[in-house]
Amino acid sequence: MKLNIALLAGDGIGPEVIDQAVKVSDAIAAKFGHELTWKPALTGAAAIDAVGEPYPDETHEICKSSDAVLFGAIGHPKYDNDPTAKVRPEQGLLKMRKALGLFANVRPTFTFPSLLDKSPLKRERIEGTDLVFLRELTGGIYFGEKGRRDGGDTAFDNCVYTKEEVTRLAKKGFELAMTRSKKLCCVDKANVLETSRLWRETVQAMEKDYPEVEVAYEFVDAVAMRLVQWPNSYDVLITENLFGDILTDEASVISGSMGLMPSASMGSDIALFEPIHGSYPQATGLNIANPMATVLSAAMMFESFGLQEEGAAIRASVNKALAEGVVTEDLADGGKSFGTKEVGDWLAANI
Amino acid sequence: MKLNIALLAGDGIGPEVIDQAVKVSDAIAAKFGHELTWKPALTGAAAIDAVGEPYPDETHEICKSSDAVLFGAIGHPKYDNDPTAKVRPEQGLLKMRKALGLFANVRPTFTFPSLLDKSPLKRERIEGTDLVFLRELTGGIYFGEKGRRDGGDTAFDNCVYTKEEVTRLAKKGFELAMTRSKKLCCVDKANVLETSRLWRETVQAMEKDYPEVEVAYEFVDAVAMRLVQWPNSYDVLITENLFGDILTDEASVISGSMGLMPSASMGSDIALFEPIHGSYPQATGLNIANPMATVLSAAMMFESFGLQEEGAAIRASVNKALAEGVVTEDLADGGKSFGTKEVGDWLAANI
Ligand SMILES: CC(C)[C@H](C(=O)O)[C@@H](O)C(=O)O
Ligand SMILES: CC(C)[C@H](C(=O)O)[C@@H](O)C(=O)O
Repeated sequence: MKLNIALLAGDGIGPEVIDQAVKVSDAIAAKFGHELTWKPALTGAAAIDAVGEPYPDETHEICKSSDAVLFGAIGHPKYDNDPTAKVRPEQGLLKMRKALGLFANVRPTFTFPSLLDKSPLKRERIEGTDLVFLRELTGGIYFGEKGRRDGGDTAFDNCVYTKEEVTRLAKKGFELAMTRSKKLCCVDKANVLETSRLWRETVQAMEKDYPEVEVAYEFVDAVAMRLVQWPNSYDVLITENLFGDILTDEASVISGSMGLMPSASMGSDIALFEPIHGSYPQATGLNIANPMATVLSAAMMFESFGLQEEGAAIRASVNKALAEGVVTEDLADGGKSFGTKEVGDWLAANI
Repeated sequence: MKLNIALLAGDGIGPEVIDQAVKVSDAIAAKFGHELTWKPALTGAAAIDAVGEPYPDETHEICKSSDAVLFGAIGHPKYDNDPTAKVRPEQGLLKMRKALGLFANVRPTFTFPSLLDKSPLKRERIEGTDLVFLRELTGGIYFGEKGRRDGGDTAFDNCVYTKEEVTRLAKKGFELAMTRSKKLCCVDKANVLETSRLWRETVQAMEKDYPEVEVAYEFVDAVAMRLVQWPNSYDVLITENLFGDILTDEASVISGSMGLMPSASMGSDIALFEPIHGSYPQATGLNIANPMATVLSAAMMFESFGLQEEGAAIRASVNKALAEGVVTEDLADGGKSFGTKEVGDWLAANI
């Protein structure tokens, strides 16, 4: 396959972990006979510094004309704690999601047996956890009209959803459930919110098209509890943008493997792949960041092209590294650890 | 003191656990020389069945003319999974909160040493956890304009906050922080939402009035993570209605003592006290429900009148019951257990 991949390294440790994912992907391409062309582009604080905005038009053009986007991380301390700053890296993120139509954020949470004890939860609570959130990413309160009234003393944010937006996200949820255990949980707050009632009735109406899928409807507050109590009781969960923001982050810490969790954001034309961890500014340039989440994001990318074997080869290499202790210091438990680059080299060599 | 207490037992196990709290409160009154008058009133599904609505005017009048409200639980399976039902118990709850002006929901999460092992989290993560959420309860997306457009295919919920609403909630937060460790965390999503930016700037402007309080600002998604990772790193947290709904429920399961957690909802005129657990319909009438959360809610009620010793006497009785194994089956670990009524009798006798 010939693939053009936009490469948005971003801020902080972004460039370092992206380098490793490129290295591993190139090894995959060599082994399986694909031709990968990387198209680097600016984003985040790095883009603000260079051209004054976090998601420049040029970057958008590069993304649009590529087959996928591989993304590192964005965010820089100088923009933190100043939510009112005129230009912020997060704006670039939201603009990019909207402009590329990335409406479905796919966030798996799974466990690695060797890392179970890193979880804040007891082993028996998380063993076997393997769930996926589908978070709606381009609608809801994130993108509704917002502003001030009364000379600034009243603020508002409007949450809006259309049936169409719910349907396309839910469709991905049903389809994903069909490839897994055929269990789908729709997370909403239908006892209070009108948008949630639209979600619920839309999903209910779709049930007949997927007779094999068992659908449960749960309130967001109940899910926030059960995720901590029995995460392994969930499989595929679908939810709106803001609930998804909160719950996917909550879910990410239960596995003990947060530093290893990849994600994908899918649109109708293009998809973006990124680690769920942030830009980790304190570690920038120190060659200590764990590249595995980004490498696993590359695995998701290959799988999205239908290249299952390629994805499996990457996952196998990561599993082997974990088993043999070829890990960065965050996973080394005070024992021998390797640098970001060394782990990347090892993973590439073991493809 | 002469106190009139509105008694809203509600649905499911509500009446049973309320009975025990009444018994224990009467023992307190006898011991400390107070005069308690209980004013029972209908609410929830029980009220819908009796008079067709979940928070009847008569109940409101009784609440308004009382010194406090002691509340059991509401919710009945026949109204579940039917979010579009015309009359639902939850509506009564929201109407009551608004009508009584209960703008601050106080939700402590603390640990009982003997129950630490019931937590899904590892012991070392939760030891010493003692935090309090102040959730704004009468504003935000719960009460903003909501509805449909486009023949029903578009739904919207408006989230609105005024500076005044934020200020009165935050004031309670600062005051509470002053009586505790002087640490306050404001939870928002100021990198995306305008209402959150109003929250943040309002709280920031209040900092100078409480120079001793150390204020942190954290995003709701980050808090959803850290609550599971290091709950004992938090003390007082303030947040808006919807975030509070999700996070307080998440927090309640980490302590392993969810069945014991009380709560208060404060207004300018009156306050309401209730266990955080629900109506637990399956256990209705079986004399197996744990009454301790309701009894501890009564403790919060006495404390709200400045009757600290009375509150402490209730807490001591509960601690003693836990230490001596006088518990309902949920806490008995398969060992000897007592009925709801028997635990209530024991707690009252040990005042
Ligand atoms: C940075 C922020 C705008 C973003 C979001 O809330 O979507 C982040 O938390 C995420 O989940 O990707
Ligand atoms: C029943 C529901 C409307 C309510 C809420 O969301 O406020 C409940 O979850 C709560 O937290 O008291």
